[in-house]
Amino acid sequence: MINQFYKEMTGKESVIRQFFDFARQRAAEKGQDSVFNFSIGNPSVPAPDSFKKALLEIVENGDPVKLHGYSPTLGQDSTKKSIADSLNRRFGMNYEAKHIFPTSGAAGALAHAIRCVVNDGDTVLTFAPYFPEYGPYVSGTGAKLQVVPADYDTFQINFEKFEEMLDENVSAVLINSPNNPSGIVYTTETIERLAEILENKQSEYGHEIFLITDEPYREIVFEGVDSPFPSKFYDNSICCYSFSKSLSLPGERIGYMAVNPAAKDADYLVPMAGQVSRFTGHNCPTALMQLAIERVIDETSDLSIYEKNANLLYTELTRIGYKVVKPMGTFYMMPRVPDKNGTAGENGYRDANEWCWKAARELGLITVPGDSFQCPGHFRISYCVPTEMIEKAIPLFEKAFEY
Amino acid sequence: MINQFYKEMTGKESVIRQFFDFARQRAAEKGQDSVFNFSIGNPSVPAPDSFKKALLEIVENGDPVKLHGYSPTLGQDSTKKSIADSLNRRFGMNYEAKHIFPTSGAAGALAHAIRCVVNDGDTVLTFAPYFPEYGPYVSGTGAKLQVVPADYDTFQINFEKFEEMLDENVSAVLINSPNNPSGIVYTTETIERLAEILENKQSEYGHEIFLITDEPYREIVFEGVDSPFPSKFYDNSICCYSFSKSLSLPGERIGYMAVNPAAKDADYLVPMAGQVSRFTGHNCPTALMQLAIERVIDETSDLSIYEKNANLLYTELTRIGYKVVKPMGTFYMMPRVPDKNGTAGENGYRDANEWCWKAARELGLITVPGDSFQCPGHFRISYCVPTEMIEKAIPLFEKAFEY
Repeated sequence: MINQFYKEMTGKESVIRQFFDFARQRAAEKGQDSVFNFSIGNPSVPAPDSFKKALLEIVENGDPVKLHGYSPTLGQDSTKKSIADSLNRRFGMNYEAKHIFPTSGAAGALAHAIRCVVNDGDTVLTFAPYFPEYGPYVSGTGAKLQVVPADYDTFQINFEKFEEMLDENVSAVLINSPNNPSGIVYTTETIERLAEILENKQSEYGHEIFLITDEPYREIVFEGVDSPFPSKFYDNSICCYSFSKSLSLPGERIGYMAVNPAAKDADYLVPMAGQVSRFTGHNCPTALMQLAIERVIDETSDLSIYEKNANLLYTELTRIGYKVVKPMGTFYMMPRVPDKNGTAGENGYRDANEWCWKAARELGLITVPGDSFQCPGHFRISYCVPTEMIEKAIPLFEKAFEY
Repeated sequence: MINQFYKEMTGKESVIRQFFDFARQRAAEKGQDSVFNFSIGNPSVPAPDSFKKALLEIVENGDPVKLHGYSPTLGQDSTKKSIADSLNRRFGMNYEAKHIFPTSGAAGALAHAIRCVVNDGDTVLTFAPYFPEYGPYVSGTGAKLQVVPADYDTFQINFEKFEEMLDENVSAVLINSPNNPSGIVYTTETIERLAEILENKQSEYGHEIFLITDEPYREIVFEGVDSPFPSKFYDNSICCYSFSKSLSLPGERIGYMAVNPAAKDADYLVPMAGQVSRFTGHNCPTALMQLAIERVIDETSDLSIYEKNANLLYTELTRIGYKVVKPMGTFYMMPRVPDKNGTAGENGYRDANEWCWKAARELGLITVPGDSFQCPGHFRISYCVPTEMIEKAIPLFEKAFEY
């Protein structure tokens, strides 16, 4: 008998996927011009030329037996060192190569980091709005994910609810800043307060609470925004990163886990991640990508379009009347679903799903309801799209405001 | 508290790793010429030029946003189709793209395939000698691995023991042919008999028993050897493959899982594998490798050196007096530990660990004891090495025969 748990899951398409598929189908039927697809977080700018050059040089000149041979289980030493050095230069940290574990993107990093610091039955806390894949990442480890409700006014941390939910069973806290889907960045004040609470609770409970920081959008932060490096503020921390957004390489599955050298058991955690891989069949990222990344470690794609798009959308949407927490980075924002006709329920929010489907079907305006991110009454806009598409979509957002 | 299970594992280096590290240390101290390292299964011949050409062309001419963008969760359609078509041409199968799930090597394929067809507490049977990583691959799924003892005369399947161990709890049987570490290939007779037993037991138990075939050495089969495609003989089967050996790309982590179209629930299994990835953080192999593989789908490296090495070693070792089951493929063989001085224990076998360490320390002759493969009294030779190294090592095998 095939596995019943996974079999049942195949029937359940994510809501994000449903909107994406609808967009594709509409484009096929009515033409690409009839679809304004703001549903997907796929970078819209190319990788830098230097990355292409690095790939070509490595393939052209490398000894193929060495180049394509097995990487060390814990990653290429030179790649690990280059990642550590870059983090140290930029954030005043003290990583060594041994603290870095190259992974297949941030998904791989998170799956390893969580397995390293939780035991069966533990609780992992995260904060709404949050990336829905955290659900399976955590439940696959035997731990339980609990979600602290959003602070809807700022999308910073709702500390009141957090302190209510933090108890002895919590062995890890998972944050995502800059944040998908809200586009906000946790301020230094937020990170300091979070660190202080965790330090106090560690003492009170007599065990570590690890802070796992999911940071694929670290390099997409807008002008003048305060963007602290969370591991700088809290010792028991593991930073999870992917080059997918900064270098526009989501398909190449390259990222890392960086263990804070000051963490308890810091020297165990990367070797433990190597053991985790044996059970999940994950293994290293590709040898070629490890070597290529190393050559462009401090570079990024030209990310300026995301800020341009954010400003345009924010200005226009607020002009129309949408309530929006101003994005500070990423290529997302999370406006409140408009309620001009006063159909909101008791909780003060309209049904985002209904509104999003209406806008999709009637206008070809494809966004994603916030319920997927445990943020009802809101919708996510992914603006990693051509600016012209946003310009053309503004009249549609005006129409949808009337729904 | 960090995870205690993985923490304890970090202290326990595999025996293979210990021999490998000893070889590296000896080379550093006494020079590379003092080490004859037969401990590692890393291909010694380069990837074909056509693979290099494919990589360069794709990187040079591809639109970087598309090229490096997210692959579909279940893999690139064109890659899936090319794998299916190739298997159909070669083995008379009826795979469609939807039956193929590209993975990060065979490790990824096995980890997914097992999770798809077992439920918690099930038993998976495999056959000694076997690849020791099957242990964590299976235990990570919640199932239990049980190992059928070897048929030491042929390294084909020990059917008597197999039938004793096959019971209602068995939901999957895992085979590896061509086999690491023995170098033998299961004959058509073996596969037919295995399939017949499984068919009968499926009827008797009223549930499927899936046959998972681990085939990374499929293309390394020596002249005149009968090498059946197991899925041709049994409907409920999943073929797991890696291009690591055929194209000499172990570091590039590219392989696949191919679900037999005739299997029960065949159309569920690839979508289920996609769900499995969400829990393990595995995701697809890299977009670039999927596209490159597609262009060289029917090619291999020049694999002839492995047969040349096998013949040389087999001839010389048997001349010296070693008992060896003649390898039929791969780049391994598994001779019996010699016992000229009659120190074998009750079971008729000498302590392979002791003999291997003596040969390593006194002669720099690095092999691996068979105990790791649940095959006591034997040792594995990996002959993916330059032929000259084998020629120089023959006198050492002569000396070690006297131990």
